[in-house]
Amino acid sequence: MSRLKLGIPKGSLQEATLDLFSHAGWKITLGSRSYVPAIDDPEIECLLVRAQEMARYVESGALDAGITGHDWVVETGAAVDELSELIYAKQRLARVRWVLAVPEDCTIREARDLEGKVIATEVVHITESYLAKHGVKARVEFSWGATEVKVPQLADAIVEVTETGSSLRANRLRIVDTVLESATVFIMNRGAAADSWKREKAENLILMLQGAIAAASKVGLLLNVHRDDLPAVLGVLPALKKPTISALSDPDWVAVNTIIEEAVVRQILPKLKAAKAQGIVEYPLNKIVL
Amino acid sequence: MSRLKLGIPKGSLQEATLDLFSHAGWKITLGSRSYVPAIDDPEIECLLVRAQEMARYVESGALDAGITGHDWVVETGAAVDELSELIYAKQRLARVRWVLAVPEDCTIREARDLEGKVIATEVVHITESYLAKHGVKARVEFSWGATEVKVPQLADAIVEVTETGSSLRANRLRIVDTVLESATVFIMNRGAAADSWKREKAENLILMLQGAIAAASKVGLLLNVHRDDLPAVLGVLPALKKPTISALSDPDWVAVNTIIEEAVVRQILPKLKAAKAQGIVEYPLNKIVL
Amino acid sequence: MSRLKLGIPKGSLQEATLDLFSHAGWKITLGSRSYVPAIDDPEIECLLVRAQEMARYVESGALDAGITGHDWVVETGAAVDELSELIYAKQRLARVRWVLAVPEDCTIREARDLEGKVIATEVVHITESYLAKHGVKARVEFSWGATEVKVPQLADAIVEVTETGSSLRANRLRIVDTVLESATVFIMNRGAAADSWKREKAENLILMLQGAIAAASKVGLLLNVHRDDLPAVLGVLPALKKPTISALSDPDWVAVNTIIEEAVVRQILPKLKAAKAQGIVEYPLNKIVL
Amino acid sequence: MSRLKLGIPKGSLQEATLDLFSHAGWKITLGSRSYVPAIDDPEIECLLVRAQEMARYVESGALDAGITGHDWVVETGAAVDELSELIYAKQRLARVRWVLAVPEDCTIREARDLEGKVIATEVVHITESYLAKHGVKARVEFSWGATEVKVPQLADAIVEVTETGSSLRANRLRIVDTVLESATVFIMNRGAAADSWKREKAENLILMLQGAIAAASKVGLLLNVHRDDLPAVLGVLPALKKPTISALSDPDWVAVNTIIEEAVVRQILPKLKAAKAQGIVEYPLNKIVL
Amino acid sequence: MSRLKLGIPKGSLQEATLDLFSHAGWKITLGSRSYVPAIDDPEIECLLVRAQEMARYVESGALDAGITGHDWVVETGAAVDELSELIYAKQRLARVRWVLAVPEDCTIREARDLEGKVIATEVVHITESYLAKHGVKARVEFSWGATEVKVPQLADAIVEVTETGSSLRANRLRIVDTVLESATVFIMNRGAAADSWKREKAENLILMLQGAIAAASKVGLLLNVHRDDLPAVLGVLPALKKPTISALSDPDWVAVNTIIEEAVVRQILPKLKAAKAQGIVEYPLNKIVL
Amino acid sequence: MSRLKLGIPKGSLQEATLDLFSHAGWKITLGSRSYVPAIDDPEIECLLVRAQEMARYVESGALDAGITGHDWVVETGAAVDELSELIYAKQRLARVRWVLAVPEDCTIREARDLEGKVIATEVVHITESYLAKHGVKARVEFSWGATEVKVPQLADAIVEVTETGSSLRANRLRIVDTVLESATVFIMNRGAAADSWKREKAENLILMLQGAIAAASKVGLLLNVHRDDLPAVLGVLPALKKPTISALSDPDWVAVNTIIEEAVVRQILPKLKAAKAQGIVEYPLNKIVL
Repeated sequence: MSRLKLGIPKGSLQEATLDLFSHAGWKITLGSRSYVPAIDDPEIECLLVRAQEMARYVESGALDAGITGHDWVVETGAAVDELSELIYAKQRLARVRWVLAVPEDCTIREARDLEGKVIATEVVHITESYLAKHGVKARVEFSWGATEVKVPQLADAIVEVTETGSSLRANRLRIVDTVLESATVFIMNRGAAADSWKREKAENLILMLQGAIAAASKVGLLLNVHRDDLPAVLGVLPALKKPTISALSDPDWVAVNTIIEEAVVRQILPKLKAAKAQGIVEYPLNKIVL
Repeated sequence: MSRLKLGIPKGSLQEATLDLFSHAGWKITLGSRSYVPAIDDPEIECLLVRAQEMARYVESGALDAGITGHDWVVETGAAVDELSELIYAKQRLARVRWVLAVPEDCTIREARDLEGKVIATEVVHITESYLAKHGVKARVEFSWGATEVKVPQLADAIVEVTETGSSLRANRLRIVDTVLESATVFIMNRGAAADSWKREKAENLILMLQGAIAAASKVGLLLNVHRDDLPAVLGVLPALKKPTISALSDPDWVAVNTIIEEAVVRQILPKLKAAKAQGIVEYPLNKIVL
Repeated sequence: MSRLKLGIPKGSLQEATLDLFSHAGWKITLGSRSYVPAIDDPEIECLLVRAQEMARYVESGALDAGITGHDWVVETGAAVDELSELIYAKQRLARVRWVLAVPEDCTIREARDLEGKVIATEVVHITESYLAKHGVKARVEFSWGATEVKVPQLADAIVEVTETGSSLRANRLRIVDTVLESATVFIMNRGAAADSWKREKAENLILMLQGAIAAASKVGLLLNVHRDDLPAVLGVLPALKKPTISALSDPDWVAVNTIIEEAVVRQILPKLKAAKAQGIVEYPLNKIVL
Repeated sequence: MSRLKLGIPKGSLQEATLDLFSHAGWKITLGSRSYVPAIDDPEIECLLVRAQEMARYVESGALDAGITGHDWVVETGAAVDELSELIYAKQRLARVRWVLAVPEDCTIREARDLEGKVIATEVVHITESYLAKHGVKARVEFSWGATEVKVPQLADAIVEVTETGSSLRANRLRIVDTVLESATVFIMNRGAAADSWKREKAENLILMLQGAIAAASKVGLLLNVHRDDLPAVLGVLPALKKPTISALSDPDWVAVNTIIEEAVVRQILPKLKAAKAQGIVEYPLNKIVL
Repeated sequence: MSRLKLGIPKGSLQEATLDLFSHAGWKITLGSRSYVPAIDDPEIECLLVRAQEMARYVESGALDAGITGHDWVVETGAAVDELSELIYAKQRLARVRWVLAVPEDCTIREARDLEGKVIATEVVHITESYLAKHGVKARVEFSWGATEVKVPQLADAIVEVTETGSSLRANRLRIVDTVLESATVFIMNRGAAADSWKREKAENLILMLQGAIAAASKVGLLLNVHRDDLPAVLGVLPALKKPTISALSDPDWVAVNTIIEEAVVRQILPKLKAAKAQGIVEYPLNKIVL
Repeated sequence: MSRLKLGIPKGSLQEATLDLFSHAGWKITLGSRSYVPAIDDPEIECLLVRAQEMARYVESGALDAGITGHDWVVETGAAVDELSELIYAKQRLARVRWVLAVPEDCTIREARDLEGKVIATEVVHITESYLAKHGVKARVEFSWGATEVKVPQLADAIVEVTETGSSLRANRLRIVDTVLESATVFIMNRGAAADSWKREKAENLILMLQGAIAAASKVGLLLNVHRDDLPAVLGVLPALKKPTISALSDPDWVAVNTIIEEAVVRQILPKLKAAKAQGIVEYPLNKIVL
């Protein structure tokens, strides 16, 4: 039987990834010490690999596909295909930025102020490309972690990843520039991507992952409305997708079923009520494929 | 931009309150030590305040609105508006009673037996009003907590809050009388309540909180039924809300969609089956605005 | 009032059982040390009893009914009625096997190789019946637990329960034969089963437990489809239950609502999309009675 | 090399036993799932075995020696040598009693009231011997645990182990009689006990275990005293062991070093001070061999 | 039998107090919910009472003695005897200060700047006395806790307890003045203090508590030294207590045994080595009564 | 004031190091997120630094001294002074080995079999030196962790650190060769080592750390013996250090006080008893400077 060798990112992305697969319909089970998790799909074989090393092993063909950050694809320079971004807003698979940061009270204001300085970072190649682009010469030192506490004692500046900037602020650092934007991506070995069975398996997988991601931030809304009030009610609903309007046994009334962003429900609901919608019910969703 | 300054009760009500806001559509995030939690609505500014002190700070205008117990509104005598009760049955925002309790084997049987006794309580003013109403003179001592273990060694009676009475029974105490019934309330500063923007903001917030509260104890029920059996099926359904009856492509059949109390499903379902309902499905709800 | 005395299995099945009752509509609450849990149904009285002892106490009438494993009914030889299996696939109420197992590198290959050996097991009677059936004489020793580590130092073979075999493999044991298959069962005292009130109460309980079990592995699927594409879409859906097809206000379109196994969604969804289904939404279910 | 095969009791005695060995000078390390713990003495080989099964396996020679309760030696009727009691007062290796207990308000007052009753217990043989001794006929049922909650619903009386009686009182049970007193014992296989190397190894082990047990409840006391006050000071010290009196460079003073029960220090110290002892210092001990 | 009714402070001092009693030779055991802990001394009866309420109940005679803060004796104005301070440096029974604190950037610089302001505090009476002493009129509001986050939104200044000031700094508060210094004290009811049995019991208890406190920060030091080097070695040792010098069998050498502060060992040891002390050993102590 | 800037290893060595400093007499306190821990010695300034980066920062002078592994000094090639090994046997500061390991069933038997292979390791430079020494050409890939699970899927061999080899065995790996032995070392910047104040501070620190390390595996032994039996008793004691023999008031007896390895007590004690030593007491030690 054909099998897709799939790398699951070990570490900070791991829990969110297993969660996402579970919502998408695949149960991945970790043994106590094993790095070969079980998956309930005989067509897939999983391996837990650090996000930093994923692209390297997908490039070499040790893996057919994997989930990692775009940043590590760039850092390792691996020649792989990025099939899809996976932006899972409610949890950890969100967009991040690698930023150049310095102590709040430091005089460095832009890239060229780095000339001759020491920069600590986990992404040495990305940082060197950035410096080259700005024509700056500086020493880039590999940091094994806890990079944000290295300035000013151990380095002059850092290039560090951040989602909201709060960890940087807590360490009294100032962001000077964005070096790279990144998101979680589904990557594929180029040979495997040319194999039609593997390609289709990967695309179906992505379809379901995207379906679960879409459902996580959305809800279903069900309401009844008198035909006379229907235009007003429809006017309130966002245009994400045309609502399903179905006939009721009482011919004067219709039922409206629609999907909206959970975040806007608190604004829409009072307006729906004002527009005379009745029996408004919000219900949760597992997956959405519009 | 206008902002509603909102007090969230710190302590025993805190978790249930944050949970309720989350279900209603607002995410409140606590920092590690902060008493100014973040909320994902730029029109609201939160402050964590003890339930006991909430009414005092809403009265003074330090807060526009807040969530606290009716008991603490009475105890502090604060002049605030109680806009709505929030009875969230599944968790902690339920009704409670402040009761006069004494050791099981004690001779005190009614209020007037308290003459000359020592009463320990966290609600000194409520207790003094109660004694005055009954024309009794007794010493009321403020208790810093663990009131129920103060009798008989340190006090003759206590006035203590209870939901089910089980903690009192575990301490072998007998309830003599109910001093005050209380529930969680949404209170508002009178000046803020007269400001139309703040008033509407508060009312929309209450609408959503009530929508989430209503959904917590209810479920959706979906079933198909032959038109001939419809009256029998409808006869079984409680009259909480008129069910939505929709046409199916087979004109002899209709679909019935309704909302019922989760607690009665186990009684209704066997009867629906007996009445020839088919494909009965129960599904969860997030919010209900009937 | 009539009451059904119901035994809840204490120990490894306990959490899954309480969970199942909760999904079925009954909340069972454990006190801190109590073996008489509270249940929110005045017609039921619960008692926590070990699965091993359940059948014995249902037989004697100390309990009217109980939930235990079929294996313990056999082991104790209790004369009770098994009303229904409860196979709750997602959690712990699944089928198990009692197997004869020996060290991987041992020479025992079938039952008759056991002649004169020592067998450790928790199910002495089941094991003795098995040996008798194969005409083998061996010493069967009761094991207080941790049976799988007793070979080879303390016994020659074991008869042990297993769900997936992974614990046996981890202890480098080889399965020689299946001694008994078992599942969780709802058992009833024969006298109680003849009492019409108790019988109906038990059957309604089973109806709801089965409804919750069915819902745990299934989901609802809602989609819109043009009437022209309806046959293709219906062709993709499994025949578990006839889908509900309802008219939309646009007469060219219909809505399809159906229930399918969650495990097949990942295969069905890509095909539905290919068949031109639109607005496909998967939603969770609480209970199903088809 | 000769090795002593030693059984360590798994379960409730396990932690206290490992602790005791650690204080005696042997480090026993459990692997994550292993029942063959490592010990830092090449002359000993450990096996974790339930206390209930220990005597059986020491009798058969699968183990040379083991630590278990005297009760389980009696219950299994195993022919083994009990070399030494291990009464470790501060922790769990203390004496226990198996008692006959009944509900507080029950009419059973002595053994003969049990005629025709049902008794639940983990020690079926001990209980049957007790009944035989009193000439009583009753049904003894093996209990898989939680015995104390079986009366009155599931049994008329129980025979259960207790250290302080508090668990029985919490379950509102009354003790009718003591059936057996028991303590932790070091047992040895009779053949192994006749092997001089194994015997000496076991006895040295017991010497160190007893040395650690003795030290756990005792402390060292060091003080200076003028020769004139020496008789008074010595008069205050308990006669557990003759104190060591040593000369100081100042010939008028001596130092006294002694070992006393920690529990009496609080009574002795004020008296020592009154008797003019100076520089009194209490220090902890690891082991004592007097 | 005579018994001393002793109050143990519930809450923040509780663990350190139980620990101190354990080191002093009394084991106090808490039941799961009980406020009447067990103590292994039939002459003492314990009650867990909040530090804030302790002095009130010692004054009334409900307790003979108790452990609380000097601050709460002052706040409640209770007429009790303070027999001894208990300064247990290594843990929580240390000295604390109640300070007047304001936001870092606020203009209040001294007591008289408080005129007309709002001050939040747990010690209303202490604060009012302080204001009266400075001739200032301000509103003092009782705070139920989390006082340090009340400024500036809910109060202008606070009077709050602090050990190191770090919590105040973390909340960006500035200390304006010290309102009261306080330490843990052993207090006694005046009538009980006049009872000779109770008085002696209390004093022996204090002797042992002080003995344990003294030992916690000290260690024993044992060394050998040639008689020629003795003066140099003695010159290095602190004069806390005259060292015990004992004769060795080799008449040219003596052994020195002394007690010193653990905190100075790291300075003394290198000097002792330089002064030719040999075989220097530091050992732990349980109690010291010099 | 002069201050020694000292690097404390963050991560796996951290807890054992803080523990060691505590035993040596310095309390290091971590704030919740801070990498600048507090130390109770104004002459020292601590910084938490990863062991891998320590040597680099001690070389550059960012730190005066630090604690790290000898392996990382070699890997980084940093020019620093290794002042002392710190072998703390009871815990984590023990010796380790970096070994070349391959799958159990693999054909690689010695270094030269690596020609053309892929080797994953955290110590790229050490591995490359090892290969160069053996004249082998292979690709060495930096591994971000979990190196032992990379063979055979992702690499042919690994160079990994091991203490006991158990993790390698658990992953079914075979050790081919030892690449480097390493221990925890105290390293110093060469400039700082030439500063007499810093040098003396570092050496006193090492003296105390070694004193604590020595005490951790040793105990004190105190016994009385009749002068006639003294030679026999002394014959049993190991020659680690000459025992202290002191005169007792009874001239026929002497007291012997000595320090021995805790690990040999279990062998010595039975012999001491046989040699007629009396009142043998083992007591714990904090520090030893012989």
